[in-house]
Amino acid sequence: MAKDFSSFLSAEGASRKKSPLKGLLRFMKGDMVSLGGGLPHPSTFPFYSLSAEIKSVAPTILNDTSGKTSSATSDLVTVPHGPQPGKVESLSASLQYGLGTGIKSLREFCKEHINQMHRPQYQDWDVLLSAGNTDSYSKAIAMLCNRGEKILVEEWTYPAALEMIDPLGVGHIPVTMDGEGMSAVALKDLLDNWGSAPDQAKEAKPRVVYVIPTGQNPTGSTMSIQRRRDIMRVAQEHNLIVIEDDPYYYLQFNVDNGWVPSLLSMDTDGRVIRLDTFSKTLAPGCRVGYMSMNAHFCTIVQNHNEVTTQQPSGFSQTLLAEMLVSHWGQEGYNRYLTENVRTEYLNRSRHLQACFQRHVNSKLATFIEPSAGMFIWIKIHLEHHPQYGTVSDSALMLRLFNKCIENNVLLVPGWQFSCKPKPADFDPADPLGGWFDGQATYLRATFAYASFEQMETAMIRFGESLNEIFSA
Amino acid sequence: MAKDFSSFLSAEGASRKKSPLKGLLRFMKGDMVSLGGGLPHPSTFPFYSLSAEIKSVAPTILNDTSGKTSSATSDLVTVPHGPQPGKVESLSASLQYGLGTGIKSLREFCKEHINQMHRPQYQDWDVLLSAGNTDSYSKAIAMLCNRGEKILVEEWTYPAALEMIDPLGVGHIPVTMDGEGMSAVALKDLLDNWGSAPDQAKEAKPRVVYVIPTGQNPTGSTMSIQRRRDIMRVAQEHNLIVIEDDPYYYLQFNVDNGWVPSLLSMDTDGRVIRLDTFSKTLAPGCRVGYMSMNAHFCTIVQNHNEVTTQQPSGFSQTLLAEMLVSHWGQEGYNRYLTENVRTEYLNRSRHLQACFQRHVNSKLATFIEPSAGMFIWIKIHLEHHPQYGTVSDSALMLRLFNKCIENNVLLVPGWQFSCKPKPADFDPADPLGGWFDGQATYLRATFAYASFEQMETAMIRFGESLNEIFSA
Repeated sequence: MAKDFSSFLSAEGASRKKSPLKGLLRFMKGDMVSLGGGLPHPSTFPFYSLSAEIKSVAPTILNDTSGKTSSATSDLVTVPHGPQPGKVESLSASLQYGLGTGIKSLREFCKEHINQMHRPQYQDWDVLLSAGNTDSYSKAIAMLCNRGEKILVEEWTYPAALEMIDPLGVGHIPVTMDGEGMSAVALKDLLDNWGSAPDQAKEAKPRVVYVIPTGQNPTGSTMSIQRRRDIMRVAQEHNLIVIEDDPYYYLQFNVDNGWVPSLLSMDTDGRVIRLDTFSKTLAPGCRVGYMSMNAHFCTIVQNHNEVTTQQPSGFSQTLLAEMLVSHWGQEGYNRYLTENVRTEYLNRSRHLQACFQRHVNSKLATFIEPSAGMFIWIKIHLEHHPQYGTVSDSALMLRLFNKCIENNVLLVPGWQFSCKPKPADFDPADPLGGWFDGQATYLRATFAYASFEQMETAMIRFGESLNEIFSA
Repeated sequence: MAKDFSSFLSAEGASRKKSPLKGLLRFMKGDMVSLGGGLPHPSTFPFYSLSAEIKSVAPTILNDTSGKTSSATSDLVTVPHGPQPGKVESLSASLQYGLGTGIKSLREFCKEHINQMHRPQYQDWDVLLSAGNTDSYSKAIAMLCNRGEKILVEEWTYPAALEMIDPLGVGHIPVTMDGEGMSAVALKDLLDNWGSAPDQAKEAKPRVVYVIPTGQNPTGSTMSIQRRRDIMRVAQEHNLIVIEDDPYYYLQFNVDNGWVPSLLSMDTDGRVIRLDTFSKTLAPGCRVGYMSMNAHFCTIVQNHNEVTTQQPSGFSQTLLAEMLVSHWGQEGYNRYLTENVRTEYLNRSRHLQACFQRHVNSKLATFIEPSAGMFIWIKIHLEHHPQYGTVSDSALMLRLFNKCIENNVLLVPGWQFSCKPKPADFDPADPLGGWFDGQATYLRATFAYASFEQMETAMIRFGESLNEIFSA
């Protein structure tokens, strides 16, 4: 059973109660006629059926990644208006108001998927659907963090994670990273010695750590099994809640030894809040994610959902359910993830790396080969620039960025992912405003979106830009 | 132009900045190749086309409200995977990450609809999409209210509106209502004399008022034109932001003189935040609403969306856009609202009222005829009970509720909608826990969901329950 984490709840989280209106549902049985809940009648919905042509995941045709519609590689998924024989809710049921957990069929599919993939080690874990990982994350933060508190984060991280919490008055404390993501040693050091640094004297010890363990954004790093164990041991020792944001989990390139174990799979206490999403495996526009965590936390987020987002779109839910439950099944979805999603990103990653090696001078820029995700994290070796030491790193990087723009290639300035304190005159709306020294030497490139030809072009242009700047 | 309401922003609202990542978009022109944003490539989305059978709104067949699928009354809406000739985004574009405003075609349709219906009187108003009205409301509150502040509300209101804000430490102040909703006189009195009551001495004067002006939940009341003018005058005099939550606007029963003017239509300052939703006109499961307000507020909520919900589901957006923009058009949608939605609820309302009159002793229970919405608000005349005065109102109402349950009819206890302070031992999860005196004498019935036969049955059972309790 999960430990009792009630004392970890924020003032908001502790007050997220069930609505009395929902309490009336228990009277709905037998011959009861309700004039209770203010639901519109489904006969008024002007949608009679929903269908989509989807990718077929039959083993023989899965490897066609052309993305083209072809009768040989697609199936027709249809959701009728009224009751249907299968396990999936009808269109009219999915388009009605529902519980803040999401619809039953899709929620159960996700729970069974989590069970098969991660085998949680405690009993009372549960799953509920959200409107995507940023929605999940914002609700986890609301449940756990009061204004004035701070969470632990990787020193480079997903910018929206900080942009979400900063206006809430929830701060962040960067933890040093290495090629395997957040350093467990650094995390332990920081917590073991909490309060000894002058700026920590008045601050409460952090109780929440946010990590992206697989194909980390922006560094592309993936925690080894040992690193995961070490992080979980520190979390247990210092009694931390762990938010495991894992959108790139299925974008692992080498699964010869199986998928890497998640932090959730190592959690014996119910202290991990695992965030999964269909955004990277199916499409961002699904706006469906799911949270796996202890049942108490699930209830609180459900209550929060029921007064804000309610649940994901009924069109999204019923279509995903029909596809996953009735057409693909767990086995088909797993095959799709392994043979399609994973392979697609593996090929893309290899291609961008090959282009880099062909066109970029490896004395001037390097990266650590990613084993998962969408990104390579390019370090610029400014020490080889003729003006290094006389011109600031920041000025040199700005020259490089401008040269790239001039040569029509866009990479993301590394400072945008930095968790270190920003200068006082920092303007977040100015993409060139943050080339501050010490954090200035990285660029992030993604292989997720561009075509193979575009990646080649981009690396040619980037290599030329580097050469031009370094020969100046 | 809208006035400057910057000083009305909460600490959170004032800090909701644009993401630097989005700042890079301005470089995307000409021959630029981007390895910037972490978007998955649309060719990886396993959805090739989307279609739905929808209600046809051709004038001759609109009045068929049977809800049955028939080739004579339905159209097939199809959204292809790739670029299409019409104005609506392709499926692959809608399933990609996008801006926190929602997709262009649907947003513009909504804006034009607002323009035609409400003719805002100032220039720099704008519209953005949300994941439904509760999502819109929660973001308006986040933008405006700090912990410890209070908003003004109708004395009976939508419970989730209070359940949303209470855990945030945002309180509420009930304003007296009459048959036309919130009393402008009471609102003015309260604000004119703010600080004079002992419990107000240390409290900041409220700056936000939340109203449901049309078919109010739970009372069914609708503000007259004069009442709306009066409320807006008080809002202007006392410099209030007005959250106009109007989900039942198109459920007006008498539109011989046109739709009643909205508060937005009377707003010359940009102080109204109008919340519209497709939940009551199309289906709740769309999870699409839209906010109409001054452009500054729109930018802040857009920034908030971009780190939480992002935007509504792409399936919902593209399907609604294709239906509304390419098939129905403004004129077809207006016809649908007028002849279909409005008529459906008018007929339902009339039917429930007729059943009430046939089966319920009008000495024991009465209601004010609603002119919009989904609800009738039934007052129980306990003064006619033989034990009135010797047994508490609360105990009598509990007896009545239990008798209704025993007789298999469910109405909602009025106290669930009360905004007055709750007793200390109040348990929100207990539907019978709140029968406290003074607010105990109402029940809410909805005519939105039950079939006509069920409404008749419900009123027979309710009438019998009343008779049994009052003859005891």
